Amino acid sequence: MDIPTFDDVKAARERIAPYVHRTPVLTSSYFNALSGAELFFKCENFQKAGAFKVRGACNAVFGLSDEMVKKGVATHSSGNHALSLSYAAGRRGIPVTVVMPHSAPEAKKAAVRGYGGTIVECEPSTSSREATFADVVAETGAEFVHPYNDPRVIAGQGTCSWELTEQSDGLDAVIAPIGGGGMVSGTCLTLSNIAPKIEIYAAEPKNADDACRSFKAGHIIADDAPETVADGLKVPLKELTWHFVSNHVTDILTATEEEIVDAMKLTWERMKIVMEPSSAVPLATILKNREIFAGRKVGVIITGGNVDLKKLPWMQI
Amino acid sequence: MDIPTFDDVKAARERIAPYVHRTPVLTSSYFNALSGAELFFKCENFQKAGAFKVRGACNAVFGLSDEMVKKGVATHSSGNHALSLSYAAGRRGIPVTVVMPHSAPEAKKAAVRGYGGTIVECEPSTSSREATFADVVAETGAEFVHPYNDPRVIAGQGTCSWELTEQSDGLDAVIAPIGGGGMVSGTCLTLSNIAPKIEIYAAEPKNADDACRSFKAGHIIADDAPETVADGLKVPLKELTWHFVSNHVTDILTATEEEIVDAMKLTWERMKIVMEPSSAVPLATILKNREIFAGRKVGVIITGGNVDLKKLPWMQI
Repeated sequence: MDIPTFDDVKAARERIAPYVHRTPVLTSSYFNALSGAELFFKCENFQKAGAFKVRGACNAVFGLSDEMVKKGVATHSSGNHALSLSYAAGRRGIPVTVVMPHSAPEAKKAAVRGYGGTIVECEPSTSSREATFADVVAETGAEFVHPYNDPRVIAGQGTCSWELTEQSDGLDAVIAPIGGGGMVSGTCLTLSNIAPKIEIYAAEPKNADDACRSFKAGHIIADDAPETVADGLKVPLKELTWHFVSNHVTDILTATEEEIVDAMKLTWERMKIVMEPSSAVPLATILKNREIFAGRKVGVIITGGNVDLKKLPWMQI
Repeated sequence: MDIPTFDDVKAARERIAPYVHRTPVLTSSYFNALSGAELFFKCENFQKAGAFKVRGACNAVFGLSDEMVKKGVATHSSGNHALSLSYAAGRRGIPVTVVMPHSAPEAKKAAVRGYGGTIVECEPSTSSREATFADVVAETGAEFVHPYNDPRVIAGQGTCSWELTEQSDGLDAVIAPIGGGGMVSGTCLTLSNIAPKIEIYAAEPKNADDACRSFKAGHIIADDAPETVADGLKVPLKELTWHFVSNHVTDILTATEEEIVDAMKLTWERMKIVMEPSSAVPLATILKNREIFAGRKVGVIITGGNVDLKKLPWMQI
């Protein structure tokens, strides 16, 4: 297992700087009052391609040798990694193929195509996704960039919490959504090196709480096709992300579908920002766990803003 | 007619500083490519109470003597001035009554009540609004703060474009939505003093183009109850705003309902910000008038972000 180090994060930061935004950190007196905490929202919804995933994708794509990129890159992804890898490949001018569940939001599919990516659709389950992907790699010979279980990707994601510590002062804790664990692993990698006193929390939909159950059991538990509005958080931990999560995370908190949608809608209403359901899970867990966060400075990573505006979840629940 | 001067804007800026945000200016490589211009979006949707109107409201409320505020303040408004005045009155701890059309967005009504304001409902026409308001003032004796035809309000709105010139370099033009003309008048007042070479454009819904027709005719033309998705832009010019518009505006451009909704949805999708339909009118007119704006640096005032998330216009057109 090739575990990335903080030197890899340093190299990633330099490598990706021309292609990603240093996203702003927003505060909200409304949410501070509601939570009793002082919250610093790291707005990766404003990131290139609409999500933090572009950090890891750019680090992987721009780290490849000219020889390695000839056959292009490929991946499977619930959406944001797909379009981030498409963006990165487009910037480098190489072909990219992505395997996406046919149920992925239309906005994400359109964005992948807009960046020049080729989509191959699969069923919305981990098993179907991996089988379809094996066919794609066999056919194209493309370089596989896994959405999270890849040291280059984790090192790239680690640049986000590094910026967050520079943009806010004296954080006590950072919380991020957890699906496969790429952002949480990058956060663990960075903070354990530069600010080991900051506690790291992960937030997960109750309906897809495999990471939470893994954390309690002490080994990876994977569900094949969980159902949740937080479409970015359906995938399971893998060995690399499990390494970081099991070693550095303080706790994994969960929220129900209704709590996630309420937190999402409230953020749109009060902060006037568009974020996707996955990004609302941390705030949902903060609001139901006041005893953990009240009186503390908490960094909240808003992971992405790619949402289908014609299918908003409060229209459907 | 008491015409405000730039000294009034200076006084306003100092007076309101503790109560309003210096809102950020965002840029978008996507919209720059689409328009051919270099756009600087002044994000008053992130402003306190969700709209630029809080600038004028705070300037009026905090400029009153202790004697004058005893009976409170009152106004009529299509929404944002109502909740901005409620916010300002709440910060000063005085009563506030607002006359609103019963058709105003539910989110705006809830926000007025949340700030402690009292709502009196009227029909959605200028005549009903003014008649209902006369009753309220007769009953309460409250100080009237007009939503735009008030020198204190115009001076307050003038602080917005002042910040915009500091946050962007070398603007050639500024464009803002026009309803009653408060923001446009404040922009004229400030820019004609500090940057007279910057052209000022106003943007109006085709369905409520009374300001455009007034501008061409050379005198105020008022419609009683125009129908447009841009609910903040239904009111007519009055003598104070006509003074500024007729003297300083280069042109008034219009956009159809469909163009407004398309521009609004595209902004949510690409910039990940929540803004109301009125705020999308300038961008809609920029995209259809490339020959005016291409190759130029253009400040675009996004006036507010108060929208009913359960009634989004692309669900209805």
